[in-house]
Amino acid sequence: MNTKVAIVGASGYAGEELLRILLKHPNVTITCITSRQNAGRQIGEFFPRFVEADLAFSTPDADDIAAKADIAFLALPHGLAAEYAEPLVNKGIKVIDISADFRLRDTNVYKQYYKNDHPAPALLHKAVYGLPELYRDQLKSAQLVACAGCYVTSVLLPMTAMLKAGIIETNGIEAISLSGITGAGRKVDLPYIYPECNESMRPYTVTGHRHLPEMEQELAVAAGVDEVKINFIPHLIPVNRGIHSTILAYAKPGVDDQAALDCLNQAYKNEPFIRILKKGQLADTKHVTMTNFCEIGCAYDKRTNRIIVSSVIDNLTKGASGQAVQIMNIICGYDETTGL
Amino acid sequence: MNTKVAIVGASGYAGEELLRILLKHPNVTITCITSRQNAGRQIGEFFPRFVEADLAFSTPDADDIAAKADIAFLALPHGLAAEYAEPLVNKGIKVIDISADFRLRDTNVYKQYYKNDHPAPALLHKAVYGLPELYRDQLKSAQLVACAGCYVTSVLLPMTAMLKAGIIETNGIEAISLSGITGAGRKVDLPYIYPECNESMRPYTVTGHRHLPEMEQELAVAAGVDEVKINFIPHLIPVNRGIHSTILAYAKPGVDDQAALDCLNQAYKNEPFIRILKKGQLADTKHVTMTNFCEIGCAYDKRTNRIIVSSVIDNLTKGASGQAVQIMNIICGYDETTGL
Amino acid sequence: MNTKVAIVGASGYAGEELLRILLKHPNVTITCITSRQNAGRQIGEFFPRFVEADLAFSTPDADDIAAKADIAFLALPHGLAAEYAEPLVNKGIKVIDISADFRLRDTNVYKQYYKNDHPAPALLHKAVYGLPELYRDQLKSAQLVACAGCYVTSVLLPMTAMLKAGIIETNGIEAISLSGITGAGRKVDLPYIYPECNESMRPYTVTGHRHLPEMEQELAVAAGVDEVKINFIPHLIPVNRGIHSTILAYAKPGVDDQAALDCLNQAYKNEPFIRILKKGQLADTKHVTMTNFCEIGCAYDKRTNRIIVSSVIDNLTKGASGQAVQIMNIICGYDETTGL
Amino acid sequence: MNTKVAIVGASGYAGEELLRILLKHPNVTITCITSRQNAGRQIGEFFPRFVEADLAFSTPDADDIAAKADIAFLALPHGLAAEYAEPLVNKGIKVIDISADFRLRDTNVYKQYYKNDHPAPALLHKAVYGLPELYRDQLKSAQLVACAGCYVTSVLLPMTAMLKAGIIETNGIEAISLSGITGAGRKVDLPYIYPECNESMRPYTVTGHRHLPEMEQELAVAAGVDEVKINFIPHLIPVNRGIHSTILAYAKPGVDDQAALDCLNQAYKNEPFIRILKKGQLADTKHVTMTNFCEIGCAYDKRTNRIIVSSVIDNLTKGASGQAVQIMNIICGYDETTGL
Repeated sequence: MNTKVAIVGASGYAGEELLRILLKHPNVTITCITSRQNAGRQIGEFFPRFVEADLAFSTPDADDIAAKADIAFLALPHGLAAEYAEPLVNKGIKVIDISADFRLRDTNVYKQYYKNDHPAPALLHKAVYGLPELYRDQLKSAQLVACAGCYVTSVLLPMTAMLKAGIIETNGIEAISLSGITGAGRKVDLPYIYPECNESMRPYTVTGHRHLPEMEQELAVAAGVDEVKINFIPHLIPVNRGIHSTILAYAKPGVDDQAALDCLNQAYKNEPFIRILKKGQLADTKHVTMTNFCEIGCAYDKRTNRIIVSSVIDNLTKGASGQAVQIMNIICGYDETTGL
Repeated sequence: MNTKVAIVGASGYAGEELLRILLKHPNVTITCITSRQNAGRQIGEFFPRFVEADLAFSTPDADDIAAKADIAFLALPHGLAAEYAEPLVNKGIKVIDISADFRLRDTNVYKQYYKNDHPAPALLHKAVYGLPELYRDQLKSAQLVACAGCYVTSVLLPMTAMLKAGIIETNGIEAISLSGITGAGRKVDLPYIYPECNESMRPYTVTGHRHLPEMEQELAVAAGVDEVKINFIPHLIPVNRGIHSTILAYAKPGVDDQAALDCLNQAYKNEPFIRILKKGQLADTKHVTMTNFCEIGCAYDKRTNRIIVSSVIDNLTKGASGQAVQIMNIICGYDETTGL
Repeated sequence: MNTKVAIVGASGYAGEELLRILLKHPNVTITCITSRQNAGRQIGEFFPRFVEADLAFSTPDADDIAAKADIAFLALPHGLAAEYAEPLVNKGIKVIDISADFRLRDTNVYKQYYKNDHPAPALLHKAVYGLPELYRDQLKSAQLVACAGCYVTSVLLPMTAMLKAGIIETNGIEAISLSGITGAGRKVDLPYIYPECNESMRPYTVTGHRHLPEMEQELAVAAGVDEVKINFIPHLIPVNRGIHSTILAYAKPGVDDQAALDCLNQAYKNEPFIRILKKGQLADTKHVTMTNFCEIGCAYDKRTNRIIVSSVIDNLTKGASGQAVQIMNIICGYDETTGL
Repeated sequence: MNTKVAIVGASGYAGEELLRILLKHPNVTITCITSRQNAGRQIGEFFPRFVEADLAFSTPDADDIAAKADIAFLALPHGLAAEYAEPLVNKGIKVIDISADFRLRDTNVYKQYYKNDHPAPALLHKAVYGLPELYRDQLKSAQLVACAGCYVTSVLLPMTAMLKAGIIETNGIEAISLSGITGAGRKVDLPYIYPECNESMRPYTVTGHRHLPEMEQELAVAAGVDEVKINFIPHLIPVNRGIHSTILAYAKPGVDDQAALDCLNQAYKNEPFIRILKKGQLADTKHVTMTNFCEIGCAYDKRTNRIIVSSVIDNLTKGASGQAVQIMNIICGYDETTGL
C-alpha cells in the first residue's frame, strides 16, 4: 500500500516535522512539497537534514498538487490554508489542514478571533475536527480535516474525558500553558531571536488567544452544554519543543486525584498515544518531545477542591504534524501508529 | 560609614549572590564567610569569579562570627539557620536570615510543612518578616529578619496591595509560578543535571509546597481576614535565574486591569524596586534578572471576571540576596538602593 | 528474522539511546536490560519515555545475559565493561562494547591513559574497532566490537579518508572539538548541574584526553605510518546532544577545499550515514542530532595552507548507540540502516 | 566631576550594554541616545529594563550630539560609524567608536575585508587602538578611539604578551573561538531565531573573518615583525554572552605552561581587568559574563610543543561596551574601574 502525499507550505516548522516523519513512513511517498519563497530550491538547501531526499520545492498550485497527490497536508497560515483547501477538496483530494481555518464551527467566532470573515464557510460542514481520540470514527471517512491546535490538544485530551465522565465542574476551569519557541513558527521577528528568548519567561495574549474559543467549543461538546468559559494563559519558554499545560478544575463531590486518573485510564485505555501517569506523578515535556504522545498526570488539592492536571505534548508532533500523520493513517486504514 | 558583615553558608547560590552584591557595596566589609564543606579554601578556588577578593571560607562558629561582624546573613538550609540565629541574636548580632525558619508565625504550620518541630520558637516573636514594601518600619529596628521566600515575594508584592485596597476577592486566588533552576539551590542531584533540565518544562509539589502557607499567612494579613486559601503551582524551567508568577484573582465589581494598575501605582509610587507596567504590557523575567526589581503587569478577562497578574523577579536577587541587602540598607540607615 | 539483545548498563545516556533505537527496531527483541542501581525497577520508573515497554532492570549477570540474548551491548564504564565482555565472549555471545576497554591495541597506552592495567588483554586480539566506514568487513564476523569513541568518530571519518588519499600532511593536525553535556554521561556532579553548564563555554583535558591515543592510533593506520601526533582539545557546551569538531591539517601541494571534498565524496559515495557538504558549506550539529549521520564540510585557507574540516555527529547516536546498532545490523546481516 | 556622554546607535546590544553600565556610572550623565528607527520613543518602550531612566531616542545628528555631549560612543555598523566620527571629531568631541572603522591602519586591508573604500582615511592617523592594556598612554589623550573587536580582545590579551616576551613562535598560531549569539548583534534574521540557534553548534567565516586582519596587525606589532599569519575560526554557540578563545602557539625552547603563566602574570600584574589562572586551570565564560574581566589559562603539550591558551571575555563588556567605558575612564582621568 502506498499513499502519495503533498506538503503544502513545507518550509515552516510544521512542514519540517511532516518531512521528518513522512520521509520514514513505510506507506508514504512525498510527491510534492511547496513553498512560494523557496520554489525551485532543492530541499537540502533549506533543510540540510533532509538533503538525501530527492525533493524540490515548487510553487503551490492546486492543479499540480491534485495531479500528484492523494492527500494534501496544509501547513500554511490561517486564511491562506482555506484558499488551497477549497480547490483541492473540490478536485477530490483529501485535505489534512494543520491551520486554524476549519476548527471553529461558528463563523462569527472565527471573525471575532481572526479579524476576518471566514475564508470558506461553504466547506465548514465537511470539516472534521482533527483530534483522533475524540473524532476517530468521523475521521475515517473525512475529506477535510481541521487538525486541533497545539495548546488545544494538550488541554482537551485530559479535560474532555473528565467532563464527559461528569467528575469536574464546567465552570472555573483555568488552563495555564507553556510553549517552546517553535510554537511561534519559523518567524523572523525581534522577539524570537535567540538572545530575546533565552533566559526569558513571559506570558502573552493572556486574554483572547485564538486557541481559547477552540478549547471552549470542544469542552462544551464534551460537557454536553451550550457554553463553557475558561481562562487560557499561554507563556513562551526557552526550549525548542514542547507544551506543558497546567489545568485547574473544580472536582465534583467525592472526586480526587485517583478518581481523575481512573477516569482518564478508563477513557484512554486503548489509545496508543495517551500515557496516564501514576498517582503522585506529574508530566514533563522531555518525556514526550519527538514523539506523538500526550502524557497526563493529576493531583488534587483538598483545601481548594481543585483537580490539577499536568499535560504535555510535543507541539510539533502531537500538537501538529504527528497528529496529522496519525489522522492520515486513520484515513488510509494503516495502523494508527505507523511511522510515529 | 562601614558595616562588617558575615555570610554564613556562602557556598550556595544565595551566598554567591550576596558575595556578588556585597563585594561592590560601598558601605560594607565582608569579614567572614563560612562553609563547612569548603572551610580553609580561598574564595577563588570555589568561585573563580571572586578570586580577586581576599577571603577564605571558615567553619561556621557563632563566637567567631559575633567577634567579626555587626550583621550576619544566614544563607543556610532551614533548620540549620535557626541553630546559628539563636546564639547570634543572643550575642547582639543582627541576623538577616534568608532561610524559611522564621517566616511562619504559627509553629504548628511550620511543623506541618517542614515535618519538624520549630527549631527556635522562643525567637519567633523577635522575627520581622523581610519584605521591605510591607514591613519597612519594623525592619528598621529588627534584630532578626526572616526574608520572604522567592516565589512568595513575586506573589505578595502585587496581591497584598490589591487585597489591602479591597479590589479583589480573597477566595479563588491561584498562583502559577515558573522558576529558573538556581531556585533549586546548588543541589547535586540527578533531576538537576543539565540534560535533565534542558529542553524540559515540569511542575512539582503542586499541592503543599512550603511557600504556600507563607503566601497565605501574608495574604490574610493584607486582607484583614483570618484565612486565605489559594492554589500555588510551581514549575521548573530551563533558565538560570528568574521567577514568573501568573496570578488569577476575581475582580470586585467595577474593577478591571486599569483599576488594578492604578491600585498598584498608588501603593508603590515611592518604592525604588517596584516597576508597574502600562496597560497591555506583561512582565518578562529578562527585564529584571541581575536586578532587585519586581516588574508587574495586569490584564482583565471580562468573560471570567479574572484579574490576571504577571509578576517577575530574579529569584536570587529580589527573591533572596538582593532583598536581604535592601533590608540591611534599611537597618543600617543607608539609602535603600545602595549597592543594588 | 529476529535478534535477541541485552543492554548491559541501561540506565545511562548511551543505554537510554540504545533503548530509544532498539525498541523500534523491526528485527530486535530486547530480552534483558541491566542496572545494578535500578535492579528490580520497571523501565518506566526510571525512563518515563519508555513506560509502554514491558521491561524491568535486572542485576547484570553473565549467565543470565547469555541465556537470554544473542548479542549484548555494553554501555558500562571502562574497566567494568571488560569484566562482562570476557565471560560473555567465552559463552559465545557477541559483544558490542560502547566503552573504551578494547579500542586501544597497545596495553601500555591503555595503562598510560586509563591509569590501570588493561582488564582483559587476552581478549584484545579478538576485538574489532567499531567504525563501520573503516572496518566493515572485519565487523561482519566480529565476536567482540570496540565501538569508536564519540569525539574520535567525528575526527576519524573525515581525516582517515584524506590521509589514505595522501592529500594532507600527517604532522600538524589539530582537532578542536565541542560536545554537548550528555557527553559527560548521566553524571551527578557539581560541574554538570544545570546552572553550572548553562551560559558557560569551557575546555577541559586539553592535553592527554583519553580519546587522543585512540585518534592517533587510527590516524596512523590510515596514513600507513608508525605514529601520528595531534592536538585534541575538547570543550563542554550547553546543548544536550552533538559534537562539532573543527580539524586543521596542512594541505599537500595543489590540494584545496574542492580537492578535499572530492576525496571525501569519493571515499564515502556508498556510505549511508556520511553526508559531505558542498563547497562553502560548514557543518551544524542541529542537522544531525537524533540521527546516525556524520556531516562534513571543508574549507581551505591559502594563506596558511590549512584544510579546515567541520565535522558533526550526535554524540549519543553516531558517537555511541546508533553506531553500535549500525554494527549490529552489519553483524546480523540486516540492511545497515534498519532502525536508524 | 561629571562627563556628559552621547550613545549614538543605542538600540543594539552594544548600546544596551553601554546603557546598563553608564546609567550607574557615578561620573556620567547620559545626555543623548540616538536611534534612527526608534527616534521619539522613550527608552523604556524599547528596553523595559531601563524604563526608570528619563531618556528618549533621538535621530542622530552631529550638531545635536556635539551640543549635548563631551564624549560620544558610537555603537553603529561599520561604515556608518565613520560618517558620525568625522563631524564629531571636527567639532572637538571625543569619539569612542565601537565599530571596526578605525581599527585597521592599512586602508587596502580595510577594502579587502570590508569590501568598500575606507570611509574616512583622513581620520585614521588620529585613531588610537582601543585596548587599554596595550595602548593606555596613547588613549589618555586620544580624540578618536577605535575599540578593539570582541574576538580580537580575547586573542590579543594573552598572545601579545607572549610575543613581546619572545616565548612563542610567530608562525603557526591558531585561534579557535566560540561566541554567544549577542555577538551577531540584535539581528533579525532566520539563522538567529531561537530554534535555529538553540541546540546548535556551528562555525562560520572560517577563512577571511573581518577580525582576522585586526588580530594579525596587532600581533605583528607585538612581535616586532612585518607580518604574522594566523588561522582564526569562529563558532556560534547557544549562550547569550561570552567568548571563549582557544589559541595554540609553538613554544620557544624551554617554554612550558608555567613559563607562559609567569610571562602573563608579569605583563599584567598591575592590570585591574586581567585574571591569570593558576597552572592546571582553564577559563570558563561563566566566570566573566557581566564583568569587564579577561580570564586566561594556559596548558602545554610537550608531545606537540604547543602552548594552549584558554581566554574568555564577555563579548558585550570587555569585548565592546565595558572596554569603551574603561577607555572613557582613562580619557577622563577617572579610576579605570569606575562603574565597571
